[in-house]
Amino acid sequence: MDINILLFDEFETLDIFGPVEIFGNVEEFKLRYFSRHGGVVKSVHGVPVLTEPISSAIQEGILVVPGGIGTRSLVDDEAFIDMLRGMAESAHFCLSICTGSALYAKAGLLHGKRATSNKQAFGWVKTQGEDVRWVDKARFVVDGKFYTSSGVSAGMDMALGFVRDCFGEDKAKNVATHIEYNWNSDPDMDPFAISV
Amino acid sequence: MDINILLFDEFETLDIFGPVEIFGNVEEFKLRYFSRHGGVVKSVHGVPVLTEPISSAIQEGILVVPGGIGTRSLVDDEAFIDMLRGMAESAHFCLSICTGSALYAKAGLLHGKRATSNKQAFGWVKTQGEDVRWVDKARFVVDGKFYTSSGVSAGMDMALGFVRDCFGEDKAKNVATHIEYNWNSDPDMDPFAISV
Repeated sequence: MDINILLFDEFETLDIFGPVEIFGNVEEFKLRYFSRHGGVVKSVHGVPVLTEPISSAIQEGILVVPGGIGTRSLVDDEAFIDMLRGMAESAHFCLSICTGSALYAKAGLLHGKRATSNKQAFGWVKTQGEDVRWVDKARFVVDGKFYTSSGVSAGMDMALGFVRDCFGEDKAKNVATHIEYNWNSDPDMDPFAISV
Repeated sequence: MDINILLFDEFETLDIFGPVEIFGNVEEFKLRYFSRHGGVVKSVHGVPVLTEPISSAIQEGILVVPGGIGTRSLVDDEAFIDMLRGMAESAHFCLSICTGSALYAKAGLLHGKRATSNKQAFGWVKTQGEDVRWVDKARFVVDGKFYTSSGVSAGMDMALGFVRDCFGEDKAKNVATHIEYNWNSDPDMDPFAISV
């Protein structure tokens, strides 16, 4: 099962590397790191990651898209959004962390679906898809093949939830214990929701 | 305040990128990514990170060293251990995550000090420094300028503890909330300790 991680400049560091730590401890998963054109992309905290071009990815994999300040310009990049739509339509599962769900929304992939995002950026995210059934209070949301998480650290809880759905509760718990992580396993338990 | 992140092949991904997410949200910190010779190093999960050579680091910064399976051979690499000792002696603070403390121990830096490490690898870690006062049950341990954490995810709790010590409790809490992280702020609360 190929995990296709799609990076771009100014992605949020932990959005990706939290789930990478979890998926990397599941032997059934093979992780690869992509960007639209390949080469070095930098996280918002300046982490330079060497990526492969997305054209070399196996399309039928599991797509993982981070958030971060880089999403603010990408929603207006038609070529990127078109590429993302194509990847997501072929993918078995589509995961996003934080404001990554704004990219799926802008691509029209979440039409009529339930989804969530970063709580402090939620106002902006909602403008990217008014046809989405946004969930204000959730650690993560699953709707069909789409898994969307709240901000940053919530991606780890979603990743463990995805492992649970694929391989069962024991496997997810074993990974959490291995990395000494206090898993918040209830997707509805969201202490960071903002009253609206 | 320079945060000097020292990477090596087969470092544990989240050991570093959890703390990076936290330190990267503190404007007083400047983060840079090094390895002994510079160039691309890969985490144990295959994340290729482009690094600068450690010779170009400002020696008086804050040194951060991850763990991971790569430490198993590095403890026997005299040139690496000598370089680490030099960096650590000049640094204002020395932080390690997971089995990173084995490297500090092997360099003789933790002589007579309290320190901790990954719980599942603790037997091996202890053999790297029998003169260290190893703490079996701790999320992280502070002794002088040395901060050592338990396995992987514990590095995030230690990083927030370091921010608290530098800038106060409110700043640390604000960062945790910003990244929607449930901070385990008590260094002695360790659900992953193994009875011995």
